[in-house]
Amino acid sequence: MAANSFGKIFRMTTWGESHGKSIGVVIDGCPAGLPLSIEEVNVALSLRAPGKSPYTSPRKEADEAVILSGVFEGKTTGAPITILIPNRDADSSKYEPIKDHLRPGHANYTYIKKYGVFDYRGGGRASARETACRVAAGAVAKKLLEQYGIEIVAFVKQIGSIEAEIKDAGFDHLHAATYSSPVYCPDPEASISMCKALDDARAQGDSLGGVVEFLVPSIPAGLGDPVYEKLEAVLAFAMMSLPASKGFEIGSGFKSVSMIGSEHNDLFFIENEQVRTSSNHAGGVLGGISTGMPLVGRVAFKPASSILKPQDTLTLEGKEVVLQLPEGSRHDPCVAIRAVPVVEAMAALVLADALLLNRSVQL
Amino acid sequence: MAANSFGKIFRMTTWGESHGKSIGVVIDGCPAGLPLSIEEVNVALSLRAPGKSPYTSPRKEADEAVILSGVFEGKTTGAPITILIPNRDADSSKYEPIKDHLRPGHANYTYIKKYGVFDYRGGGRASARETACRVAAGAVAKKLLEQYGIEIVAFVKQIGSIEAEIKDAGFDHLHAATYSSPVYCPDPEASISMCKALDDARAQGDSLGGVVEFLVPSIPAGLGDPVYEKLEAVLAFAMMSLPASKGFEIGSGFKSVSMIGSEHNDLFFIENEQVRTSSNHAGGVLGGISTGMPLVGRVAFKPASSILKPQDTLTLEGKEVVLQLPEGSRHDPCVAIRAVPVVEAMAALVLADALLLNRSVQL
Amino acid sequence: MAANSFGKIFRMTTWGESHGKSIGVVIDGCPAGLPLSIEEVNVALSLRAPGKSPYTSPRKEADEAVILSGVFEGKTTGAPITILIPNRDADSSKYEPIKDHLRPGHANYTYIKKYGVFDYRGGGRASARETACRVAAGAVAKKLLEQYGIEIVAFVKQIGSIEAEIKDAGFDHLHAATYSSPVYCPDPEASISMCKALDDARAQGDSLGGVVEFLVPSIPAGLGDPVYEKLEAVLAFAMMSLPASKGFEIGSGFKSVSMIGSEHNDLFFIENEQVRTSSNHAGGVLGGISTGMPLVGRVAFKPASSILKPQDTLTLEGKEVVLQLPEGSRHDPCVAIRAVPVVEAMAALVLADALLLNRSVQL
Amino acid sequence: MAANSFGKIFRMTTWGESHGKSIGVVIDGCPAGLPLSIEEVNVALSLRAPGKSPYTSPRKEADEAVILSGVFEGKTTGAPITILIPNRDADSSKYEPIKDHLRPGHANYTYIKKYGVFDYRGGGRASARETACRVAAGAVAKKLLEQYGIEIVAFVKQIGSIEAEIKDAGFDHLHAATYSSPVYCPDPEASISMCKALDDARAQGDSLGGVVEFLVPSIPAGLGDPVYEKLEAVLAFAMMSLPASKGFEIGSGFKSVSMIGSEHNDLFFIENEQVRTSSNHAGGVLGGISTGMPLVGRVAFKPASSILKPQDTLTLEGKEVVLQLPEGSRHDPCVAIRAVPVVEAMAALVLADALLLNRSVQL
Repeated sequence: MAANSFGKIFRMTTWGESHGKSIGVVIDGCPAGLPLSIEEVNVALSLRAPGKSPYTSPRKEADEAVILSGVFEGKTTGAPITILIPNRDADSSKYEPIKDHLRPGHANYTYIKKYGVFDYRGGGRASARETACRVAAGAVAKKLLEQYGIEIVAFVKQIGSIEAEIKDAGFDHLHAATYSSPVYCPDPEASISMCKALDDARAQGDSLGGVVEFLVPSIPAGLGDPVYEKLEAVLAFAMMSLPASKGFEIGSGFKSVSMIGSEHNDLFFIENEQVRTSSNHAGGVLGGISTGMPLVGRVAFKPASSILKPQDTLTLEGKEVVLQLPEGSRHDPCVAIRAVPVVEAMAALVLADALLLNRSVQL
Repeated sequence: MAANSFGKIFRMTTWGESHGKSIGVVIDGCPAGLPLSIEEVNVALSLRAPGKSPYTSPRKEADEAVILSGVFEGKTTGAPITILIPNRDADSSKYEPIKDHLRPGHANYTYIKKYGVFDYRGGGRASARETACRVAAGAVAKKLLEQYGIEIVAFVKQIGSIEAEIKDAGFDHLHAATYSSPVYCPDPEASISMCKALDDARAQGDSLGGVVEFLVPSIPAGLGDPVYEKLEAVLAFAMMSLPASKGFEIGSGFKSVSMIGSEHNDLFFIENEQVRTSSNHAGGVLGGISTGMPLVGRVAFKPASSILKPQDTLTLEGKEVVLQLPEGSRHDPCVAIRAVPVVEAMAALVLADALLLNRSVQL
Repeated sequence: MAANSFGKIFRMTTWGESHGKSIGVVIDGCPAGLPLSIEEVNVALSLRAPGKSPYTSPRKEADEAVILSGVFEGKTTGAPITILIPNRDADSSKYEPIKDHLRPGHANYTYIKKYGVFDYRGGGRASARETACRVAAGAVAKKLLEQYGIEIVAFVKQIGSIEAEIKDAGFDHLHAATYSSPVYCPDPEASISMCKALDDARAQGDSLGGVVEFLVPSIPAGLGDPVYEKLEAVLAFAMMSLPASKGFEIGSGFKSVSMIGSEHNDLFFIENEQVRTSSNHAGGVLGGISTGMPLVGRVAFKPASSILKPQDTLTLEGKEVVLQLPEGSRHDPCVAIRAVPVVEAMAALVLADALLLNRSVQL
Repeated sequence: MAANSFGKIFRMTTWGESHGKSIGVVIDGCPAGLPLSIEEVNVALSLRAPGKSPYTSPRKEADEAVILSGVFEGKTTGAPITILIPNRDADSSKYEPIKDHLRPGHANYTYIKKYGVFDYRGGGRASARETACRVAAGAVAKKLLEQYGIEIVAFVKQIGSIEAEIKDAGFDHLHAATYSSPVYCPDPEASISMCKALDDARAQGDSLGGVVEFLVPSIPAGLGDPVYEKLEAVLAFAMMSLPASKGFEIGSGFKSVSMIGSEHNDLFFIENEQVRTSSNHAGGVLGGISTGMPLVGRVAFKPASSILKPQDTLTLEGKEVVLQLPEGSRHDPCVAIRAVPVVEAMAALVLADALLLNRSVQL
């Protein structure tokens, strides 16, 4: 049921396989009158592009998206906006020898169980390639958020056991520091350690996990819906739909468990005639609705499943076999890095939708 | 946009305020021919009922649900099933004195910001009372799962800093041990420590957090949808919609982050002519689709926000004030306990829907 | 898939069988702050109630609805509004003798083919009794429309071959004339002829068809969505979901077919600084979006399927049998009459939703 | 809210403007394993293409669609199927002089009222060009229906005041006769009269209306959902979303109104061990669910709004002006003709969805 769509009013539908002709996204429900150019989309895509740093897959694919519909004279018209991203650098031949191997940590087994068929080339629809479409749609969502003064930043908070210490240095600094780090981590020291850990993992044909944190420093109160459409629930849904994600938390998250109520409760007070809370363990939401305090959450990513180390597995027919990825296979040692702009995009899509949904709740 | 509905084919819509006449749920899309009696619903509700153990709120409310539609001669007909649960023990008068206090950790501030009004009596729609409807609907979902041989158990995995050790003793044992513990924790030793910790917290007018784990020991491969409707994403959405939940993880979750790929990847092998994996860090899903291995996940709950300790806060008008809950207020010291049957219910609702959705994916 | 729900933002879900304990409706997405009392709902229900005129079924059922949720201190809160209507006058015993007869024009055969079971008592879920819930929800929708100055009137335009001539005498007159006619037809002469025709049909144990017209004299331009959610498409969907409806048309409808383009095209001109059209063959919509001219459409209802004349039919087991409705069966000789307030309600629900959807289309 | 999507499980999303680079459709929810080739889509598109007969617009655009995703080794994979149709023959320059004229019968006024902007080139999103995407998606739906032995035929039933007499000559004959007539009318005599009427209308710079009938000779009982998702309601929704449609009816439709119940009721009997009805005034549905008798309905189309005759109108700024379409403008004198394959496509989409929805209604 519309498994390839996301959002209610501001709604995207994505399509395309990793090694097909192209991938793309249709955005339905974007308000008319929003200035939009393809350059803005391509800038966003470049942050997710592989080959940008030594710690991401060397696939050389400069995504050059095109807008096929929905924009007229530089502005959205209210019609569906279609963005198409050609696949240029897709070489499926390397996968031929292992096309009938069940790949540990991958989805080919489950897709075959579900559908009876699997487009194995480059992971087909299950490939992280699909997230480029999320970033493209997220770029449009961010344009809408701009109109409300809402900015989102995400960054690598942890790789393996190395945790970054993020000082609240303002949005601009955080954003700049993130995207100037080869591992998208704004803490320079942690960044260096993470690089070293990734070098080590890669040398051993292995991979590392990571945590991505997202932060919306300034957000109006009242966004999000109660009961089943709580803002944190929709964010969790968005983030847990990302390939390789294994956990989500909002505010103090799992750490809340070992806190006591009087410590965890954020106390209300007035600052500059605004209601604020003295702490923000809630992470910016109460009862599913934004409080006006910064929105903060985290997503856990498992270590990349594609590793060069040989692994015992089965073929589709159930024969025991050793899986050895082809020499020169291009894989990220830590998928959390390139997930940073995708997490940003998903947060943007959730908030764009929440803003539009919120227009109907009062007379 | 349908913020009070959950599910796609097997879809529930809940309604009602904590101190209104009644709460209820309509289930649309339940297949015809399913045997269903109100007794089964009431048994499920009794597990969530307050006052069942010394560690839950003493509100004495024996929920006696009635089925108003959708069942004929003991079986579902395909028509919407409506279950109504009267509110018997609602005394709103205690809340009168604090009705204009912003309650730390609660939703009255955000509801007012969103809607301009708030039915403050007993927390209105934001009350955990609403979760009784989830349990009622979950009881129906479980009847459907029974037809597929699927059982779900949830239990308290952690309270405060006390973590239970759960041995895989089979579904029946786990279920029995859980619901015979006053804190719904199947580890008898941890259970005792948790009781003590709760006594201490309560003595100080404070509260504790907790983790609830859910487990589906036996589940077919192929459930869940790719991309945006991944099984883990829908489970995250379901669980993060629970009051007081702050985190969700599937399989090894946040612990995955500090594992390496060769350790985290679950290797495929054959056992009894079935494809299995040697470990289950994935928690039963790959690429959003069930693998056939046990489905395992966890939900983090913050310490209960209602505490007897006085707290600094504001009135609706922004005046500083000290919030003191009325003497004899009935509150759970740890909401994770009563969340156990609710987590079970949400998992059941997700799986019932996934089973029906899965009927349409092949010719 | 949510077959018992209608609407997107302003969304109702109905439930209940004709001879169950009660029927009801949950409205999710009604904006907060709308004044609402149960009296307003009951007044609306009284117009649909059977036994109101000699030409409707004599079932004596004074619907006394109750509001179970979503209203606090006389206003909606943004929470789901539940309205329950008890079934008082349900006597299923009369249907026992014919419970295994396929009833011509009725849904018991198709329900059994679809679901394998059928709650035959009073027609179960397929009964027109369900439309009471539409009227209750429509009463809430009308309260919202009031805020925009939008009023809707529906009336009987035709019964059998007797067509009324409706003069544009203003909303108030039309509304009053409609509901003072025993056949809900504002043309007094046609009304008398219709009564006679109904008397004749009833005397022969037979029934007549009818056409109901709806009119929204004053409506802003811009409502409705393009492509698949055109205002006329959603209205058609709404009206063709009514029991016994067989046709829908907007504006000049089927008569458009024999017009030529230069005659059918409504020409734009300015009147009182407003853009108007010189004629309104379009019926108030162009390209699926309201023009600001009156919205006008019609619904065709077949003659009532429940007739006292004996009819050849089969039993569930396929045995030939003559169906004879029990003496004293209570049936409307023409369902179009009581459909009038239901058509009004459906139009109100469509427009309430369109108004809320329209809030998101521009920046 | 997803105004550019249609369907629930089998769901299409269309995009693109008449004079943009391309238009296209994404189909989500098509079962895996369905054989599909682009040739089949292009054959379907050729039936809708302009310039095919003297009575359709001479725009010379051989649609050459491409499949961008969702098909692997000649079969669908369960992933979204994207079909892109380039726009080749788009010359917007002719529209420049009248771009600020309100066009009678067209949507530019309402789009501007709704969105504040309008992509006037070729009618933008409001153009009937969009229906090519429906036909492309319908071709996929038909492939699915084939698996169930379901075939659909549509044809011109009426143009202006000339009504065709359609003999039940079997699907194959009807299909062949339809598409060999220049006006898609299988009655050869009526076809000739219609051609003459169209010649006359065109000579006067005017246009005619028409009725398209659709017929599904063989369909299983049990399709369609009760209450709000009745099969006839969804068909009405589908058909009334077509450009220029003004009315819809099922079975005997508006003619039912002047029938009496004992005449209209279709009586059940057994034929070849199948339950049948002696007549089919119902048009194949009872209570919203298919009976197994042929599904029959009709759609009324207004005379084409684009006429060469000069028309009084206004500019966007409200200035009076005479609209004169540019010499050599390419317009259909009767849109019902090219609507035939589109009506077929919409019926196919509705039934494909109904078949999949029906998989979940019983245990």
